[in-house]
Amino acid sequence: MKREQVQQLLNGDTAYKTSRLVSVFLIGLITLNVLAVIVESVEGIYSAYKPWFDAFEVFSVAVFSLEYVLRLWACTSLPAYRHPVTGRIRFAFTPLALVDLFAVLPSLLTWGGVDLRALRVVRLARIARIAKLGHYSKALQLMAQVIRRKRHELTISLMLMFVMLILASSLMYVVEHEHQPEAFSSIPATMWWAVATLTTVGYGDVTPVTAVGKVLGALIAIIGIGLFALPAGIVAAGFVEVNENDSSSHPSYCPHCGKVLDEDRIHP
Amino acid sequence: MKREQVQQLLNGDTAYKTSRLVSVFLIGLITLNVLAVIVESVEGIYSAYKPWFDAFEVFSVAVFSLEYVLRLWACTSLPAYRHPVTGRIRFAFTPLALVDLFAVLPSLLTWGGVDLRALRVVRLARIARIAKLGHYSKALQLMAQVIRRKRHELTISLMLMFVMLILASSLMYVVEHEHQPEAFSSIPATMWWAVATLTTVGYGDVTPVTAVGKVLGALIAIIGIGLFALPAGIVAAGFVEVNENDSSSHPSYCPHCGKVLDEDRIHP
Amino acid sequence: MKREQVQQLLNGDTAYKTSRLVSVFLIGLITLNVLAVIVESVEGIYSAYKPWFDAFEVFSVAVFSLEYVLRLWACTSLPAYRHPVTGRIRFAFTPLALVDLFAVLPSLLTWGGVDLRALRVVRLARIARIAKLGHYSKALQLMAQVIRRKRHELTISLMLMFVMLILASSLMYVVEHEHQPEAFSSIPATMWWAVATLTTVGYGDVTPVTAVGKVLGALIAIIGIGLFALPAGIVAAGFVEVNENDSSSHPSYCPHCGKVLDEDRIHP
Amino acid sequence: MKREQVQQLLNGDTAYKTSRLVSVFLIGLITLNVLAVIVESVEGIYSAYKPWFDAFEVFSVAVFSLEYVLRLWACTSLPAYRHPVTGRIRFAFTPLALVDLFAVLPSLLTWGGVDLRALRVVRLARIARIAKLGHYSKALQLMAQVIRRKRHELTISLMLMFVMLILASSLMYVVEHEHQPEAFSSIPATMWWAVATLTTVGYGDVTPVTAVGKVLGALIAIIGIGLFALPAGIVAAGFVEVNENDSSSHPSYCPHCGKVLDEDRIHP
Repeated sequence: MKREQVQQLLNGDTAYKTSRLVSVFLIGLITLNVLAVIVESVEGIYSAYKPWFDAFEVFSVAVFSLEYVLRLWACTSLPAYRHPVTGRIRFAFTPLALVDLFAVLPSLLTWGGVDLRALRVVRLARIARIAKLGHYSKALQLMAQVIRRKRHELTISLMLMFVMLILASSLMYVVEHEHQPEAFSSIPATMWWAVATLTTVGYGDVTPVTAVGKVLGALIAIIGIGLFALPAGIVAAGFVEVNENDSSSHPSYCPHCGKVLDEDRIHP
Repeated sequence: MKREQVQQLLNGDTAYKTSRLVSVFLIGLITLNVLAVIVESVEGIYSAYKPWFDAFEVFSVAVFSLEYVLRLWACTSLPAYRHPVTGRIRFAFTPLALVDLFAVLPSLLTWGGVDLRALRVVRLARIARIAKLGHYSKALQLMAQVIRRKRHELTISLMLMFVMLILASSLMYVVEHEHQPEAFSSIPATMWWAVATLTTVGYGDVTPVTAVGKVLGALIAIIGIGLFALPAGIVAAGFVEVNENDSSSHPSYCPHCGKVLDEDRIHP
Repeated sequence: MKREQVQQLLNGDTAYKTSRLVSVFLIGLITLNVLAVIVESVEGIYSAYKPWFDAFEVFSVAVFSLEYVLRLWACTSLPAYRHPVTGRIRFAFTPLALVDLFAVLPSLLTWGGVDLRALRVVRLARIARIAKLGHYSKALQLMAQVIRRKRHELTISLMLMFVMLILASSLMYVVEHEHQPEAFSSIPATMWWAVATLTTVGYGDVTPVTAVGKVLGALIAIIGIGLFALPAGIVAAGFVEVNENDSSSHPSYCPHCGKVLDEDRIHP
Repeated sequence: MKREQVQQLLNGDTAYKTSRLVSVFLIGLITLNVLAVIVESVEGIYSAYKPWFDAFEVFSVAVFSLEYVLRLWACTSLPAYRHPVTGRIRFAFTPLALVDLFAVLPSLLTWGGVDLRALRVVRLARIARIAKLGHYSKALQLMAQVIRRKRHELTISLMLMFVMLILASSLMYVVEHEHQPEAFSSIPATMWWAVATLTTVGYGDVTPVTAVGKVLGALIAIIGIGLFALPAGIVAAGFVEVNENDSSSHPSYCPHCGKVLDEDRIHP
């Protein structure tokens, strides 16, 4: 089998049936891996079905290792990574290739010299395999695109939120520290209250008790929630924009005369 | 009376006064049924007025059964279900026909052979009769239309929310499990905290207590609420779009040939 | 002084300086009345300054009564209420005239035959005088306009919220009633939890404790918050629309050639 | 060195490399100052590293004092503040100059005659130095621009929120005061509950317990959250508008004469 074909197979080239089957198989395996980590965390389940979970893990690591090796071998068929040595090294440092490596490396290393205490952390770290979905998931790619597109607005609003967070925490610390020295023990500790309030989560595990603190808290809540709702609005707007661009990649045609419709005239 | 007339009567054809009266009567009866279930759940009310509630239930089931039989009998007047046997069978499997059947079947079955323990569940299940409003409610139909129109965006954002939920729960489980083995007993259990935080409901029955857990929780809250606000934004945008299309009195014209443009073709 | 002049004075006709002064005076008096009610509610303050509060109340009622009588006397200068008897009666039943009457009637009635127990409620009811601001407040009028404009969408979304609320409460009642018979004692009682969850307020005084209840609660939270955010989105959209219409009542002109600019071309 | 050069150096004129370095140095120093205040608030850290913190404070005050003096000396190179005496006085009362003064004055005054009790407050007040970022931060300037642009809408919605807050607090006070005389001790005290509910923070430290109070609370939550979400929507919309105007590379042209349209004239 040629390199080009392996490359197409692994990247879900929808023109080939086998390629789609490989994608579906790998997506299913990733999903089952994530489910396995979640289910294993429930008390008693892992010890009851240990052989099954371990066999599944060996099988998964084998498949993912093979996938990684094949991707590294076939990447030279891509124009950008043509060189057999430097091309492969550069490919190995692309985000998705690193994800693929990190998805198998901890398990392989542990099997080399099993340290029982690290085992639990390694098993939980397998949840990171969900990032492998980045190969296939249009949703994750869309979100990455939205964040890139709106990085300027997001940076600005994150800075404003940070300033607001610091001011809110400092003021509330000054007001409440004496009356609740435990909950408002320091400015960093007060940030826990500030985040819960500004995001409107409002756990209620820490609340101001003095009159001044309540007036201040009310003002911070009223002023601040608008600021902390900014990223949500920006992401939502970017999401809609990117999606519209996507679906209007080919222009609209008049169904009667077949001419191209000028978008700006139709949707004013 | 002809089949066409029964069909018109039951579907609230606004051109006939009797048809409107039938609609109002059935909507009122559905509403009273829902209210009855709600009121009955209050301690003591059902036992105090048992004969009245039971008589109302018998009357309702009789009316709804008659309605179901008439709909099934008259559906052959619709072009899509013309065949007296196969047409009726296909009609019986439409969502609204199934809702109509499920609205009476449990009560009818219980009366056949009363099992006192199942009775309570059957009485509560009558709340599902609210779905019968789908025959008349423009609001429910509009919402169904919005969800159909935005199913692509909603699917994508639900997937992203799911990935976020899994990552947030796994990380928080790793951090807090040792310090709060009850509240954060497993990843699925930690999801209860994650949902409360990411939706900003924030009950406060479960909160991180370690410093690392609080930093992680704050980051999850700040990053995640934007993601979980996406469906709300998408539904709101779809709601406005659908409503505008509905009320836009003059259609769009092609600037080249001047013919009316079919909305559905233009916005794919 | 003529009726037309009194009419202009009381309605804040901005062409006359005296009229503006009357408006400012009445707005100030209404604000002070509201503040008085708020301050009086604080333990000890009313009894400490009783004579001052009572004198201010007598003064306020006198002014507001005079205002009401003058409005009723002068309304015949308006074309719509020209008839001295039927015009005045119709005017007396306009919303703002009823507000003006209700702002003084309880106090006047109490002074007729003071019933000490009703007194407290009457004093608190003075907070309704805030509605008198409707004569002057552009903000309240704008909000009324937004609600009128979007009444169709708001009605639809309120219906959907109501259906969601009933379904969420019924389901959660079935699941949690047995385990928490106090907090989830009936479907109406469960609605308190449902409203707190669906609005994302999340007090946390009532939360599901069973695994099924938590899964159900999580699903309700994720699905429902989009629905309950609809009115906020609709009001915000209407608010922006009304405000834009307001400020674009006169068309834009090109500063160079002075011709009217076609809005649709400029903002694509 | 000439005044013009000092002026350019301090205002981050990006054409000169030294000027950019000065900006980066001052931004870094401000950030470190804010971090120092936050870290110092943690129990034990200040006493453990007192000499380092104090040295850093002396250094910072020296730099910021020098910056202030230089700005005051060089401001006469700006056309608006050309006069050596009155120009400098007017410059000293600009918001950013006052911020610069307030950033050093308390520390300088304390060193003059150290009062140990005031010292802690003075140290905390240094957090206000974050406002010095206003010289450099595009984010803070953008937010100021958004608030100026939308001040009309923001004022209206703040008024509506205030009316809603007063009505919600008064009604809930009437209903709950007798049953929870501590939590709902007065209308101002009830406002703490009202703000937590209307912003959807929902700490849960104060909640209605009577049936009437819960029905009222539910209605307030459903109606009120739309109102309290208005500023967030307005700020988000303004944020997007300002940013778009900023990045809109080609200006609008009048369709009649073809000249460039001044944005500020078109959208009043």
